[in-house]
Amino acid sequence: MSFVLYQDQFIERNQAKVDIEDRGYQFGDGIYEAMIVYSSHIFLLEPHMKRLERSAHELNLNLPYSMDHLTRNIKRLVEINHLTDGIVYFQITRGAAPRQHYFPENTSSVVTGSVVHKERSAAQGTRGIKAVLADDIRWLRCDIKTLNLLGNVLAKQKAHEEGAGEAILHREDTVTEGSSSNVFIVQNGELVTHPADHFILNGITRLFVLDLARRLTIPVHERTFTIDELMNADEVFITGTSNEVNPVLEINGHLINGGTPGSIERKLIEAFNAEVEWIRALPQTQA
Amino acid sequence: MSFVLYQDQFIERNQAKVDIEDRGYQFGDGIYEAMIVYSSHIFLLEPHMKRLERSAHELNLNLPYSMDHLTRNIKRLVEINHLTDGIVYFQITRGAAPRQHYFPENTSSVVTGSVVHKERSAAQGTRGIKAVLADDIRWLRCDIKTLNLLGNVLAKQKAHEEGAGEAILHREDTVTEGSSSNVFIVQNGELVTHPADHFILNGITRLFVLDLARRLTIPVHERTFTIDELMNADEVFITGTSNEVNPVLEINGHLINGGTPGSIERKLIEAFNAEVEWIRALPQTQA
Repeated sequence: MSFVLYQDQFIERNQAKVDIEDRGYQFGDGIYEAMIVYSSHIFLLEPHMKRLERSAHELNLNLPYSMDHLTRNIKRLVEINHLTDGIVYFQITRGAAPRQHYFPENTSSVVTGSVVHKERSAAQGTRGIKAVLADDIRWLRCDIKTLNLLGNVLAKQKAHEEGAGEAILHREDTVTEGSSSNVFIVQNGELVTHPADHFILNGITRLFVLDLARRLTIPVHERTFTIDELMNADEVFITGTSNEVNPVLEINGHLINGGTPGSIERKLIEAFNAEVEWIRALPQTQA
Repeated sequence: MSFVLYQDQFIERNQAKVDIEDRGYQFGDGIYEAMIVYSSHIFLLEPHMKRLERSAHELNLNLPYSMDHLTRNIKRLVEINHLTDGIVYFQITRGAAPRQHYFPENTSSVVTGSVVHKERSAAQGTRGIKAVLADDIRWLRCDIKTLNLLGNVLAKQKAHEEGAGEAILHREDTVTEGSSSNVFIVQNGELVTHPADHFILNGITRLFVLDLARRLTIPVHERTFTIDELMNADEVFITGTSNEVNPVLEINGHLINGGTPGSIERKLIEAFNAEVEWIRALPQTQA
């Protein structure tokens, strides 16, 4: 039996329904987070919750519970589902109201959350992906993690249809990010990635990898880069909650680094793995 | 008692719930139409249904019923709710599936629809609105009528907070459309409105008004125009399902045509009213 978080309660999966006039359903008016779980520990829980708080603030969306309370419920959702390895997902919408574009008064935001069991080893086995280029046609507030995801969906679908694992998005000549990941390139042993402005989502894994890189004394440049720089980079990788650090070995049929992970990627993956092992070894009470 | 269309059935309003993993709820992955009803006749039903069909096609979204069947159910929704004047709204999402960005296989699209009773006279009494300018930050497929409406929502909220009825959107110097309407300007007795490309929704009322204008031998130009042209226009009006033809009398505090409807607007409103009266006089079987 699988349980779902609905507002402040844990209910059976098949009971989890929302009203047709929930603004999440009619406007995509809501925010979300997806976090990875290693040995029952939610990885990078705190920065995810801080980003959620920021998303809510940017959309003027009332959080129906305190951040502490919400955090406790998300931990409890993991426990109650006996989730050891996998993903915990939750979203908050502005709630149900008679349909009108501007924010309704006096609605109650709606929290829903669920988990997916997934072994990490599976992701590891598929390390290294193909990617395709796609126009970034999304709106100009990609920094907010909202439910308005059709631009991302259409790009990922294009990748999927072309047998690739990710679509790398670009506005004219500038590479922004992946359809559900951030994109890094390596040039002469240094990392380059798009700055965290309104054109990209500031990924929690992106920030974690930037931190790993600094600890490994790999120079980091948060600046825009072109499609040309991407295609001619020494290494290209994406970061994301499930992807962790995932080398991009081929883009539009063009091999990167001869189609094998590069030395910087291997270093970052090794450092990432060490972090995961460290987390796994923590007692449950420190989750 | 109010009834809601759910798939192929008419159910009580309070029973109308959807699954939390409906892609409409998690990605805004769906399309919609809102139509106005005059004396139980759905106005411009056919072009609305044709646009829906196009939206579905652009998103590769399977319509779960034939267009004829869907159209019959929407008419039936109006009847069963004894709607004489008001709005009939319906949407179709890609349905429920385990969360992943690309299109799931074998999902069933989900149809929901509802009505709102609203006298036309109310809209007429508020003819003539104030507007504010707002950056158009939306994605680049505004031609598809999707549930990804946060850009529209935020613009309308801005207008609402500033005591205005609509936000007029612009990309840099080019005016695109309203947050839930199309924008027309009048220059020397001629109409100008943004061409129907990927930057705007090709409004059904927009098309109807273009047709009215041609019948009235008012010259029409579908071309882009600037903020400067907007502010210095002889007249400015918006079109939309509820707004019909609605003069914009003030923009960011600047009066248009001295703050009163202009002669072209009055002609179009008169012609529109005649159409509504003609529809109202039709027997119900011709709805």
